[in-house]
Amino acid sequence: MAGRKQIFVGRFISAPGPNDLLIQEGAILVSSTDGHGTIEKTSWTAQNNKDALAEFNLLEGDVDVFEAPQNGFFFPGFIDTHIHAPQYPNAGIFGKSTLLDWLTTYTFPLEASIGDTGPTAETNGTPTSPTNSDQPFPKKRKLTPLSRAHKVYTKVIDRTLRNGTTTASYFATLSVPATDLLASIAHTRGQRAYIGRVCMDHPDTCPDFYRNETPEQTIQHATESIEYIQRLDPEGELVAPIVTPRFAPSCQAETLARLGQLASTRNLRVQTHISENVGEVELVAQLFPQRKNYTDVYDHAGLLTPRTILAHAIHLSDDEISTIAQRNSKISHCPASNSALGSGFCPVRKLLDAGLDVSLGTDVSGGYSVSILDSVRQTCLVSRQLGYVNGGEKRWNIGVTEGLWLATVGGARCVGMGGRLGGFEVGMLWDVQEVVLDEVDADGDDGEGDDGKGQVDIFGWENWEERVDKWVWNGDDRNVRRVWVGGRLVHERR
Amino acid sequence: MAGRKQIFVGRFISAPGPNDLLIQEGAILVSSTDGHGTIEKTSWTAQNNKDALAEFNLLEGDVDVFEAPQNGFFFPGFIDTHIHAPQYPNAGIFGKSTLLDWLTTYTFPLEASIGDTGPTAETNGTPTSPTNSDQPFPKKRKLTPLSRAHKVYTKVIDRTLRNGTTTASYFATLSVPATDLLASIAHTRGQRAYIGRVCMDHPDTCPDFYRNETPEQTIQHATESIEYIQRLDPEGELVAPIVTPRFAPSCQAETLARLGQLASTRNLRVQTHISENVGEVELVAQLFPQRKNYTDVYDHAGLLTPRTILAHAIHLSDDEISTIAQRNSKISHCPASNSALGSGFCPVRKLLDAGLDVSLGTDVSGGYSVSILDSVRQTCLVSRQLGYVNGGEKRWNIGVTEGLWLATVGGARCVGMGGRLGGFEVGMLWDVQEVVLDEVDADGDDGEGDDGKGQVDIFGWENWEERVDKWVWNGDDRNVRRVWVGGRLVHERR
Repeated sequence: MAGRKQIFVGRFISAPGPNDLLIQEGAILVSSTDGHGTIEKTSWTAQNNKDALAEFNLLEGDVDVFEAPQNGFFFPGFIDTHIHAPQYPNAGIFGKSTLLDWLTTYTFPLEASIGDTGPTAETNGTPTSPTNSDQPFPKKRKLTPLSRAHKVYTKVIDRTLRNGTTTASYFATLSVPATDLLASIAHTRGQRAYIGRVCMDHPDTCPDFYRNETPEQTIQHATESIEYIQRLDPEGELVAPIVTPRFAPSCQAETLARLGQLASTRNLRVQTHISENVGEVELVAQLFPQRKNYTDVYDHAGLLTPRTILAHAIHLSDDEISTIAQRNSKISHCPASNSALGSGFCPVRKLLDAGLDVSLGTDVSGGYSVSILDSVRQTCLVSRQLGYVNGGEKRWNIGVTEGLWLATVGGARCVGMGGRLGGFEVGMLWDVQEVVLDEVDADGDDGEGDDGKGQVDIFGWENWEERVDKWVWNGDDRNVRRVWVGGRLVHERR
Repeated sequence: MAGRKQIFVGRFISAPGPNDLLIQEGAILVSSTDGHGTIEKTSWTAQNNKDALAEFNLLEGDVDVFEAPQNGFFFPGFIDTHIHAPQYPNAGIFGKSTLLDWLTTYTFPLEASIGDTGPTAETNGTPTSPTNSDQPFPKKRKLTPLSRAHKVYTKVIDRTLRNGTTTASYFATLSVPATDLLASIAHTRGQRAYIGRVCMDHPDTCPDFYRNETPEQTIQHATESIEYIQRLDPEGELVAPIVTPRFAPSCQAETLARLGQLASTRNLRVQTHISENVGEVELVAQLFPQRKNYTDVYDHAGLLTPRTILAHAIHLSDDEISTIAQRNSKISHCPASNSALGSGFCPVRKLLDAGLDVSLGTDVSGGYSVSILDSVRQTCLVSRQLGYVNGGEKRWNIGVTEGLWLATVGGARCVGMGGRLGGFEVGMLWDVQEVVLDEVDADGDDGEGDDGKGQVDIFGWENWEERVDKWVWNGDDRNVRRVWVGGRLVHERR
């Protein structure tokens, strides 16, 4: 792929701080189009293409120039720090379940059908997905498990890119070939992605059709997938493996410890769940009676590192928050999922005040939407509800700017890319979405093209802070015109 | 307009009960296309157009035939029982405010700019919208107040229709001509709409630039608008006036009483707000010390009738709920707004258990979205949170079917159209949306037309209950292919 330079001209909006919505106009020079493109220079005086070429000392033919329209802006790509790729077909399907019954009713059967998995598949070659069972999920089974994985993973990467997600930390399934396929598809489409082959082998908590049999087997499969992904992208800047114990209840204590060693030895990222649901917290206490609390289970296994992403973190004690802060582990806040499954309210303000890095996750399909913009909305809503529950205290409030900061800068910090993603500073990677908002005509009509234009209506008198508010509350993929990762154009609306 | 008969063929889905998702296949004969079209006959044996013509004893040329595609269905149009049309330009703009400061900061200045309003305009002909003030709102004022009303009202009716809202109960502004214009636009576009000229005249709580001066003036302006709307649609089946005291704190006691008399004398619908916010409830107690509670203020004024819609109803005492049940007044639940403004959690289950009729309102722009489908989502989410707050009690849970029932049957009951709207029974009006969901190809792509198709991805193995879940959680206006009101086609995606 060519390493041609690019210039972007127009309005650049970002949220470098929780209360700092930065609106700049000018031009940015990006080093290349090859997926490694970074910001080489910025100019906040250039007013058009010609100015930009002059300021950057380049000629028209030397460089590609992209100009955001008057009603548009460039915004840092969103970072989704918690999403289950194989669960995407279940987005919106969860009924009235809560975490533990949701897992057994909806999630494990679907995941098991995405790629050949589990001990049976390994030992006798028979796919273990429940083809002849009365499981609620697979009713029409023309696809093989791996072609099903291809279909689902292609779609989820397409959907997240369309919604402006330039980086995602994915849980896959137990299947090594299907997990490797997810890594390949992300690599080919050019999404920045951390890919985790899911580890689960606790015989008391995992279904027989969907678990490894021993810690040895778990580590072996995890290692195979890690090594495949590292061969796929030796630098690991675009696609990288991430050690993924599903959550404490699904792993044997020995497995957790050996995964901690694996992450430490190979200097790998780690992701898991923590303290999402009250029943889950009780289950962990039963399963690990020798440990102080949920956090201590991971800490004892060496899984609390500065490269660890912990999803949910709703019901942590002060003591646990303090331990996580000491370890400098990171939090993925998943408000849509938490509300949908009735898990509770994550006290984001409290976590931030304790010095933790917090980011946003869609948690598909506990969360119903692949859109981080929707996660920003739900973050704001949940924060208002938490304020209400706490007697109207305003300190819990997370507004649009802080939500966008969590979705970009927060995400960058949580995936170990702080300072390299989430803003428009020199040296940062060009992971960016171009957002376009449409203006309503004087007669109240948007004209012929109305159908394709999304639901944000700009009446013309709004300032840019207000336009960003409108985008956050009513925007969708229709407002995302183009998306780049490392300077490479990875999505463009037709 | 022609009164030609129409046949609809395909899948018909509705929610006739809170736990009853009815999925029928067949054909429906509708009496006409003229806006008064009702269901004349149904056939649940017809499998195609030919069958339908035969069953209804009609020839091909006699009738228009509409067929829902295999991946689509007809669903009753949504009923939005609480929406402020003039506030639409502020959708998504509310910052971190709560009800009372939101009104003064964002809402009153915008409403005042929609149509010439208020006592000053009446007495000396000068528009009272704050053109030379430092109000945060109007920055670019090329439009006259009435042309601004035309722009905003045209857009809000277009947006709600696109999202499948066939009936809406609108709050307008104080301006009589602008309110009349809203009624005219709804009538022309063919949306079923109850139009309320807003009444507010309390000198201590309303801004000078946006209130009537006396109860006499309030009643006079209200009456003018009522009479205009009744001339516009003498039958009052499509567009009708609705008596609209903004809320207790904004009206003098005498005004409330006289509005109650007006509604009673002329047999009119009534709409207002109740018990949305803790501070508001305290304000009402201060302003009306002689009344037992907020509900009693309305009851004393004769405003609690079976044709009254009360929006929010979050902080009612058991005593108040009992009074409202006795009066058979109706509730509009507005979950998006309540979460966005941090107002609290409406105990919908408790209200239903008390025998109240409950419906859904978007409450634009306290609510950020014109979509009742989004209100269904927020209803489900808030119910889960309420369950969590109440120690994990499942009884608070409102699932997708019950949410859809509130949005259709509940809405019909609350606007006095129970049995005439909200389902597919013979005699009901043909207020219907055609919903289409797209299937993902085997390769994970939707093909060339992907950009226009919305965000619901059907993988092919989902049953229809699950497809409806997916529609509710990720659907938007792109899934609404056509909309009819009274058999008249009022929206079609190009």
